[in-house]
Amino acid sequence: MATQKSKQWALAARPVGMPKLSDFAMSEAEATDPKDGEIQVRNSWMSVDPYMRGRMYDRESYVPPFQIGETLTGGAVGKVTASAHPDYAVGDLVTSMAGWREAWTAAPDAMMANKVPQTGLPDSALLGVAGMPGLTAYAGLLRVAALKEGDTVFVSGAAGAVGSTVVQIAKIKKCTVIGSAGGTEKCNLVKSLGADAVIDYKQHNSYESLLGALKAAAPKGIDVYFDNVGGDHLEAAIECARPMARFAECGMISQYNATEPTPGPRNIIQVVGKQLSIRGFIVSTHADMQPQFLQDMAGWIQSGQMKFEETVMEGIEAAPEAFLGLFQGRNKGKMLVKLG
Amino acid sequence: MATQKSKQWALAARPVGMPKLSDFAMSEAEATDPKDGEIQVRNSWMSVDPYMRGRMYDRESYVPPFQIGETLTGGAVGKVTASAHPDYAVGDLVTSMAGWREAWTAAPDAMMANKVPQTGLPDSALLGVAGMPGLTAYAGLLRVAALKEGDTVFVSGAAGAVGSTVVQIAKIKKCTVIGSAGGTEKCNLVKSLGADAVIDYKQHNSYESLLGALKAAAPKGIDVYFDNVGGDHLEAAIECARPMARFAECGMISQYNATEPTPGPRNIIQVVGKQLSIRGFIVSTHADMQPQFLQDMAGWIQSGQMKFEETVMEGIEAAPEAFLGLFQGRNKGKMLVKLG
Repeated sequence: MATQKSKQWALAARPVGMPKLSDFAMSEAEATDPKDGEIQVRNSWMSVDPYMRGRMYDRESYVPPFQIGETLTGGAVGKVTASAHPDYAVGDLVTSMAGWREAWTAAPDAMMANKVPQTGLPDSALLGVAGMPGLTAYAGLLRVAALKEGDTVFVSGAAGAVGSTVVQIAKIKKCTVIGSAGGTEKCNLVKSLGADAVIDYKQHNSYESLLGALKAAAPKGIDVYFDNVGGDHLEAAIECARPMARFAECGMISQYNATEPTPGPRNIIQVVGKQLSIRGFIVSTHADMQPQFLQDMAGWIQSGQMKFEETVMEGIEAAPEAFLGLFQGRNKGKMLVKLG
Repeated sequence: MATQKSKQWALAARPVGMPKLSDFAMSEAEATDPKDGEIQVRNSWMSVDPYMRGRMYDRESYVPPFQIGETLTGGAVGKVTASAHPDYAVGDLVTSMAGWREAWTAAPDAMMANKVPQTGLPDSALLGVAGMPGLTAYAGLLRVAALKEGDTVFVSGAAGAVGSTVVQIAKIKKCTVIGSAGGTEKCNLVKSLGADAVIDYKQHNSYESLLGALKAAAPKGIDVYFDNVGGDHLEAAIECARPMARFAECGMISQYNATEPTPGPRNIIQVVGKQLSIRGFIVSTHADMQPQFLQDMAGWIQSGQMKFEETVMEGIEAAPEAFLGLFQGRNKGKMLVKLG
């Protein structure tokens, strides 16, 4: 196959606070014929994820910042359309970090591409429940928070890609689960996934009100907090933590667009007396769990114990809007852009 | 031996903010002749420790609060003066929680009393470097913070009973050590214990200034933070933490007398990206390490690798003043009251 046209997105400017559509710029490029060792791939799906906001700041972090004018990257899944690499054939299914574009040509390693075996799952699941967000939930809950049967688990962002998987893994592991999400529709989703109690944080406009709701939902306290949002939720979780409780700090989306430092939890002193363990983690650190994760997850999906929801926007043009939607709470489950 | 007179201290009122001498009341009581299963002990030393402040609040915690008018408790060491217990003989050395008094009669269990084998150490060391503060340093550094050879370790309250032991254990384990303490005299002590760098926090009146000093002392960042003080020190430690750094949260003395909640670290979001582990602990949880601790500590003291400093006040009358001194930074090393 010959050169393909590909629309792609870059930062036009570094967002200040909440990102705007004008912070992004689309351009047309070409996915050339592959040279030796390269493959050409047409993406069918791309992922937008909260962690990308962090890469839009110009600062040192665990991944380098996005540069203005450089094509953005992120999770994507697609099919090989031409190959000059011995391990790849036309039609192979490939996950990669070459998102935010329709097609691409590169050496697989340069795009962290991996050929995907047949799983029986829809392709989009490879970016969600059976992909990075799924492994994040799995590793965070089972390893970082050392989940035990019978634990009372609190998870924020419970209707999101990671959170909704956390709810279900915790239920599979025979735990009591309290999920927090924003709005009736999302709360209904979390409930339908098996959560024992749901907190609609939009009904609680103050820390005290949120704390009251958590205390009512977990009168004996919580053993595990899976944190996706930080802020008041974190402070309430510390307040309700039982002795020896474990916190898996996955993200703090409430803080991602803050333009000034925000005060940390005022009750952090309880970490000492309650002997809390508060551990941050990044999914790539736990890549060794991937084989066991995929095996467990495929089994849970097949047995009907694991459901997944997707919010889909259509076409490469919609990618920035999909990304912004993450911070407006527009997604139930995994937010995806359909390209193919 | 017959009944002994014993002066003892109780709370006269719950302290609000910084405790005052008038919050304490002394009375005279008697240590009676021991009844069956009891021992009579004359204390030679008692301990005052920062954790006692927490027990002066009327709130649920890992140990129940002190009650107004009830004799205070705390670490003490003394000698058996009469015994009606088969395992104890007159002259036996005993550690107990029956501090804040000159003499006492009770069943050993009721006072958490333990007969102490001959160690060759001075009795007072059993309340410090070879006692609870020593084990706190040992367990916090080696287990909670999972210290590794070559780590860069930051410890606050480095001239205190726990901190000064942390400094020396970390040096024995071939680590680079930065200690923070208040004032030239204490900083000189920390330096003399082997610290590679010392920060006199009294020379740094703002968070930014403290942070600058820590960055200068640890230009490549820190791997371990042993926290005795909380507040700005904790925030600066998060800021300077390397990826995967481990924090042993032993205490937050800067917060103990706060009358209102104080903001937590404004950079707590870094816990996620740096994958920090922030773990609170209480020494009693790690009591299983006691035999190994005593063996290591006795060896280190004998070989001259472990030094210890004591600040001694004389007589039971001085006990509240000694306790208040902890919050005024009046102690170098372990603060003790000599009773015998």
